[in-house]
Amino acid sequence: MDHRGPEFGRLGGEILEGLREVFKTSGPVIIYPASGTGAWEAALVNTLSPGSKVLMFETGHFATLWRSMAGELGLQVDCVATDWRRGADPAIVEAKLREDSGHEIQAIAVVHNETSTGVASRIGEIRRAIDNAGHPALLLVDTISSLASIDYRHDEWGVDVTVAGSQKGLMLPPGLSFNAVSEKAIAASKSAQLRKSYWAWEPMLNANRNGFFPYTPGTNLLYGLREALLMLREEGLENVFARHARLGEAARRAVRTWGLEILCANPAEYSNSLTAVRVPDGYNADELRKVILENFNMSLGNGLGRLQGKVFRIGHLGDFNELMLAGTLCGVEMGLSLYGVPFSKGGVAAALEHLEQTATAQSAVTQGVA
Amino acid sequence: MDHRGPEFGRLGGEILEGLREVFKTSGPVIIYPASGTGAWEAALVNTLSPGSKVLMFETGHFATLWRSMAGELGLQVDCVATDWRRGADPAIVEAKLREDSGHEIQAIAVVHNETSTGVASRIGEIRRAIDNAGHPALLLVDTISSLASIDYRHDEWGVDVTVAGSQKGLMLPPGLSFNAVSEKAIAASKSAQLRKSYWAWEPMLNANRNGFFPYTPGTNLLYGLREALLMLREEGLENVFARHARLGEAARRAVRTWGLEILCANPAEYSNSLTAVRVPDGYNADELRKVILENFNMSLGNGLGRLQGKVFRIGHLGDFNELMLAGTLCGVEMGLSLYGVPFSKGGVAAALEHLEQTATAQSAVTQGVA
Amino acid sequence: MDHRGPEFGRLGGEILEGLREVFKTSGPVIIYPASGTGAWEAALVNTLSPGSKVLMFETGHFATLWRSMAGELGLQVDCVATDWRRGADPAIVEAKLREDSGHEIQAIAVVHNETSTGVASRIGEIRRAIDNAGHPALLLVDTISSLASIDYRHDEWGVDVTVAGSQKGLMLPPGLSFNAVSEKAIAASKSAQLRKSYWAWEPMLNANRNGFFPYTPGTNLLYGLREALLMLREEGLENVFARHARLGEAARRAVRTWGLEILCANPAEYSNSLTAVRVPDGYNADELRKVILENFNMSLGNGLGRLQGKVFRIGHLGDFNELMLAGTLCGVEMGLSLYGVPFSKGGVAAALEHLEQTATAQSAVTQGVA
Amino acid sequence: MDHRGPEFGRLGGEILEGLREVFKTSGPVIIYPASGTGAWEAALVNTLSPGSKVLMFETGHFATLWRSMAGELGLQVDCVATDWRRGADPAIVEAKLREDSGHEIQAIAVVHNETSTGVASRIGEIRRAIDNAGHPALLLVDTISSLASIDYRHDEWGVDVTVAGSQKGLMLPPGLSFNAVSEKAIAASKSAQLRKSYWAWEPMLNANRNGFFPYTPGTNLLYGLREALLMLREEGLENVFARHARLGEAARRAVRTWGLEILCANPAEYSNSLTAVRVPDGYNADELRKVILENFNMSLGNGLGRLQGKVFRIGHLGDFNELMLAGTLCGVEMGLSLYGVPFSKGGVAAALEHLEQTATAQSAVTQGVA
Repeated sequence: MDHRGPEFGRLGGEILEGLREVFKTSGPVIIYPASGTGAWEAALVNTLSPGSKVLMFETGHFATLWRSMAGELGLQVDCVATDWRRGADPAIVEAKLREDSGHEIQAIAVVHNETSTGVASRIGEIRRAIDNAGHPALLLVDTISSLASIDYRHDEWGVDVTVAGSQKGLMLPPGLSFNAVSEKAIAASKSAQLRKSYWAWEPMLNANRNGFFPYTPGTNLLYGLREALLMLREEGLENVFARHARLGEAARRAVRTWGLEILCANPAEYSNSLTAVRVPDGYNADELRKVILENFNMSLGNGLGRLQGKVFRIGHLGDFNELMLAGTLCGVEMGLSLYGVPFSKGGVAAALEHLEQTATAQSAVTQGVA
Repeated sequence: MDHRGPEFGRLGGEILEGLREVFKTSGPVIIYPASGTGAWEAALVNTLSPGSKVLMFETGHFATLWRSMAGELGLQVDCVATDWRRGADPAIVEAKLREDSGHEIQAIAVVHNETSTGVASRIGEIRRAIDNAGHPALLLVDTISSLASIDYRHDEWGVDVTVAGSQKGLMLPPGLSFNAVSEKAIAASKSAQLRKSYWAWEPMLNANRNGFFPYTPGTNLLYGLREALLMLREEGLENVFARHARLGEAARRAVRTWGLEILCANPAEYSNSLTAVRVPDGYNADELRKVILENFNMSLGNGLGRLQGKVFRIGHLGDFNELMLAGTLCGVEMGLSLYGVPFSKGGVAAALEHLEQTATAQSAVTQGVA
Repeated sequence: MDHRGPEFGRLGGEILEGLREVFKTSGPVIIYPASGTGAWEAALVNTLSPGSKVLMFETGHFATLWRSMAGELGLQVDCVATDWRRGADPAIVEAKLREDSGHEIQAIAVVHNETSTGVASRIGEIRRAIDNAGHPALLLVDTISSLASIDYRHDEWGVDVTVAGSQKGLMLPPGLSFNAVSEKAIAASKSAQLRKSYWAWEPMLNANRNGFFPYTPGTNLLYGLREALLMLREEGLENVFARHARLGEAARRAVRTWGLEILCANPAEYSNSLTAVRVPDGYNADELRKVILENFNMSLGNGLGRLQGKVFRIGHLGDFNELMLAGTLCGVEMGLSLYGVPFSKGGVAAALEHLEQTATAQSAVTQGVA
Repeated sequence: MDHRGPEFGRLGGEILEGLREVFKTSGPVIIYPASGTGAWEAALVNTLSPGSKVLMFETGHFATLWRSMAGELGLQVDCVATDWRRGADPAIVEAKLREDSGHEIQAIAVVHNETSTGVASRIGEIRRAIDNAGHPALLLVDTISSLASIDYRHDEWGVDVTVAGSQKGLMLPPGLSFNAVSEKAIAASKSAQLRKSYWAWEPMLNANRNGFFPYTPGTNLLYGLREALLMLREEGLENVFARHARLGEAARRAVRTWGLEILCANPAEYSNSLTAVRVPDGYNADELRKVILENFNMSLGNGLGRLQGKVFRIGHLGDFNELMLAGTLCGVEMGLSLYGVPFSKGGVAAALEHLEQTATAQSAVTQGVA
């Protein structure tokens, strides 16, 4: 299809409109033909200037990568270390901003759902921390593995740039990424001095007004995106969140019953997209993963960065349901046994019990109807 | 693609050759653009004449349908009743044939794997029974739900016509069906008097010699068939059978642990393609299936014919692996509980134990390699 | 998808309803998982008895095949020969039926659009001929290459069984075929004595009432069929016919300009689906086709049966438009020259002139809108 | 597929190796999940520093966009204007470089095939000009619409960075883009000061060594790319170039016969990917395009930038053959007539004559074989 023709403009307009619902924003959402890493860069280069000070939290592998990117782009990063078992701490945000009486910090960049650790930072509370400190810093949030899986509210939480990608909650192949942008972010972009061209918002926003793009868009994925938006609307975004919450809780009950440790240390920050699990000392998570891959043809997520060999990750996001989770947990339970990790059987049973109990009400209703 | 052109002829030749491996025959395999029911008709009309006597076994719903078809086509059927819990009895075959000193019985038609009951008749033993009786009857076998899932040997077992379809072990959509034919069957077709045109073997065999077909073939499915044959060859047919045997055993262990009854009464006839499970008296299998469909989005096979409401069927054939089976069994276990059938939990655990134990050797090897 | 489940029933119901529009009938349309040849067999075995007399016309290769099938099924065929350059003659129909005062002729079977010759028999006039003769014979019509391409009216023309397939005007792969049936045909089926099972209408009509099928249907193609019906409705059936009429006329003008002979001898019977063209004596159409295939990667239809080597066929049916036809004609014009057939250039130009002239009005309108 | 697993590494390795043939380089080719515009940015930010001087040629719309990008990124561009009817002039390159005795010019950036004008700059001659001047500037070349369509030689022509995309000669959807890089370019990247992260070569080259990527790659398109590379190898790159050359010449003969003007003023610079055609003064190319779109459902390329309304563009690149070109030219010829541009008919005939003549030899051979 001719990406300069009227039919394409209608497709573009429909998608750009539909995306707002998913980000829960009334503002514009920019689409890049790029993977999520590109949308990180876009968030930074459009809002900041060489030497701008950014507050970041090293909550895991992806946060570390974003931080490195910020450095490479010439930003000055104040990065708060963590033990990779918890999210960005709102109290630290507030303290750091209160200290910064000169308002040198121009942005706070947080990964909402850290894919390497299974920890979800509390964005709403971070917003309140910023407000409490009365600080004007922009809030940039990466939702690559949370958007359309875990509750997220761009407008309500006062996020200035939300970064997202196509390949998780939107159930598409990788290749599209997003910046949802606030008015404040757009205002900041007028004076931001980092050099940009491919990522520049302004020509995007101008062309998007008519459903077009300033350069060749990822046409095929845009068709898929239209379909994904319809599917999400059909299920209902709140139902999607509830589904992931229920699956996440079932996965965690399995892990606890096995006697293994969930990497995320703060229950208020459990990720409903994925669960990272620590293997006991003396065991190698990658060998466990290999046993499972070779025996049951299932590829679990590996430990990234400093977690290499120490954790495996169970994904439960996107187009995922009860029995897919159940099959996954069965594979883990068998793998734990085959590999010889000390653990208690019964994790699968505990997960099933939760799924069954939380299904009962619905079942009763549907049986009544029948 | 032009189905009269040279490129198509090459495709046809390749597929017709490759199919022989799957049926384990050195003879021709005929492909119909039709579903499996059509290949039943083809087997009968090519080998028999009006009023021909056929020995059949009412081993389940599909056997009953094939018997009805035989009647509709003007054959005289001697149908041995069963309780739908066992296969065709080789002893009865032998006795019936011994009695038939005038050789009036022209064919014995047996369903190898009865999809409605999860019972696999012992075709090799039936062959021996025929030989013991020294009877010239043709042996016609339906392998619609067993070919490329359960061990089957057209030549070795002296089968005259093997009936099969595309949508089970060949992992394709429905729309192609097959007759593998022995020389004896072809000889019989020369004098068979039932009227035929679409199903006639002779023009098929003539055109197939160059990879062509006497009328428009199911071109798109033939491309898929080429791919399916490659996949089966890559895995190895014996490995495919072993995989299904292992999955079938795991499913049966789950059922036994639940305290439910496997419909198939004779362990020597357990089907490795699917397991039919009886629900206790006073419970309705279709209501159970509805609970599972509505809560876990899984559609189990229903009880067909006289089994309606009395059984549900767990399929484990085709492109199926350990964790898909595990997920399926989890769905059943939760459904049994939600619906309120009296049963013992632990079926999933029993299945996992079997899968794990039978996986150990392989795992040890692969770990050694690592 | 489970072809016994409620969702499938809705799909089936929607398709069975939508097909009526395409056949222009208020009666049922039966769908077979089979290619068109199967639907020929279905039309005969459901309405006739061994030895029934059928009037047929040998209008070309496919009519000959249908006639052979009728013989194989045990019917007594009175086949009117033709020179393969014209359709079934309504005057002969009337004369034959008037002669048949004992009403021994039970059916008249006509190929609407003979794919081998590019001749479209005049079904409406044949209907009138039957009525003029006051004869009760059934009218069976093959529309495999005309349905949804050339005007066709099952009810208005009093056709009793219309035979069709999926792979031409319905723009699908081969694998589905159809019988649209009149009340009179259904009544005849109650007493028809030809043996049938796979093709039997009664179980089909019974199961179809709820959108289901008595045996495994061609599920994947049914999804495609739903889409095809939507596309036809969107364009409008009369517009589809007009498109093909315009393309057919352009093709014929090209042929005439080249100085070649259109095989169809009667302009009232030109097919708008395809044009068969005679090559001059001393030239071989198959060599010409080979030159075109090898130089321009285009496979033209070959001469079938007695026309082998004497004609080539230009298809212009289904999802076909002006520039696809233009490209096709360019390939033929270059091929004629390369192969060395004596001809006049300018065929393409003549076709373009026609296409341009018949486009003018529409263009004027659209320009006015611009 | 897990883009960190061993199977993916094999795919990556195979593609990265195969791409070298297409660029005709023994050096690395970097793949970005981005459209072609991103690869422009990558070429600049990896090799240059803020304020670096770049020599560019405003040969058309895309050259203008690349120049704007260079400005946005903080480079100092010396842009040689043209009339948009010719390529980058090697004589000017040589003169400019000779003048630049201080070697301030760090790069020369040229669009090989300007998609907006149908002009192909002579990269080999530009290389010689640089060498004649004895100047060390890097040579950056955009081949987005020429790679795998028009002869191109990264190594032989001493190109330092070749920019390409997936959606033209590689016959894929948009979404992947490329930088083929020389050793000199890599050396330059060590000291280049423009800020970069997503586009940075170094982490790409490091990860690529094992077939991996430093961030999520465009997995689905990579599968397509493997297929595209196989197709190109099967046809043979030189045959691909010859095919486009033949189609391009046929298109130009049509344009000349119509009496219209080919935009490209220098026959040595005709593009074999596309032909831009000027409409006579007083006529609007966009109205002509609209007539053709509405009447014949064909979307011609529009005039971009300063050429808006003045030219239309006939594409003949990628998976394109004789009859597709013929159909396209037929659409243009009819459209010219309908819209009322003064022109001479016969363009299609002239194109066919060329295609036929250049086909003769091959045809003779194949006929001999038959």
